[in-house]
Amino acid sequence: MRYFVITGHKAVSTGDFKLDDIAGGAGRLDILVRCVNSAFFLSHNLRKDVEIYLVMEGGDDAPKTVIFKGADLRYLNPDERSTASLIRNALIKPVSEGEEVRSSPGVYVTRMSFYDVLSKLSQVGSFVYLKEDGVDCREYDFPENPVFVLGDNHDLTDEEEQALLSYSPDKICIGPHS
Amino acid sequence: MRYFVITGHKAVSTGDFKLDDIAGGAGRLDILVRCVNSAFFLSHNLRKDVEIYLVMEGGDDAPKTVIFKGADLRYLNPDERSTASLIRNALIKPVSEGEEVRSSPGVYVTRMSFYDVLSKLSQVGSFVYLKEDGVDCREYDFPENPVFVLGDNHDLTDEEEQALLSYSPDKICIGPHS
Repeated sequence: MRYFVITGHKAVSTGDFKLDDIAGGAGRLDILVRCVNSAFFLSHNLRKDVEIYLVMEGGDDAPKTVIFKGADLRYLNPDERSTASLIRNALIKPVSEGEEVRSSPGVYVTRMSFYDVLSKLSQVGSFVYLKEDGVDCREYDFPENPVFVLGDNHDLTDEEEQALLSYSPDKICIGPHS
Repeated sequence: MRYFVITGHKAVSTGDFKLDDIAGGAGRLDILVRCVNSAFFLSHNLRKDVEIYLVMEGGDDAPKTVIFKGADLRYLNPDERSTASLIRNALIKPVSEGEEVRSSPGVYVTRMSFYDVLSKLSQVGSFVYLKEDGVDCREYDFPENPVFVLGDNHDLTDEEEQALLSYSPDKICIGPHS
């Protein structure tokens, strides 16, 4: 399995945003949406062996984490607007601490924080931190169940980075320009 | 310079589409939009050394080619909707055969066909065809002024491919899955 964790530092945790304004009012939700689409889409097909964790740290109901699981994912389309709509449907669902509520096939919402997500995924995979000073990915030997962790338009906060570093992640770099 | 040519086989050549429906009514314009954004965006910056040619082959006024030039490009945002809006503004502009009309800084519209674009770019760069049976891009020595040619959700037509092959392009592949 391949896991991705994206921190949406201002991404809204409530479903009351406009689909016409996902880059603005929804707290750069457009970035998370593109991560979802990049993680799953092949040409006319979806990768089944992927799970992506979108940590929504903005808005009045943070933190929440929306999870897309390739194994049973349906209704994902490659345009941003429709993926944002799946996320909005998840954020609208009532969810309690400790629960994982399904909003549509393969899409789930929880009240996990970034730290909860790291703790959970540390049980199943090996952390890989995408960072400018990491090893060139062309020379990197990927683990069997990588957990890729990345920020949105902002790097991880110091606190988030310290938490991740406590799991001794590999650091890799995918190119000379950020 | 890096050049990209994308054929939008059904992408509308008129500006009368809805920004809420770029994956539908606009003929999979969402694909072209993502190509634009992938070609230009760095983190909080734009690549200046890029030009992208979007060949619009659908609708009543085809063919038209919308060109984004990094050297003087402005007002490009990373979300799909706003890039689609720049394309729509270009398609609304009146343009005659042989003209290149600027609709906003760095965005131009012409009546060039796919074949016209190939002919023009053959003067300035070396064609690189993204194709499943190409050389692994990690082992490929990129030319100084590459012209990357790719289809949208459909491959190039036989006629388009023959035209491209007449320029003896290099063929490269960026991964095992299309």
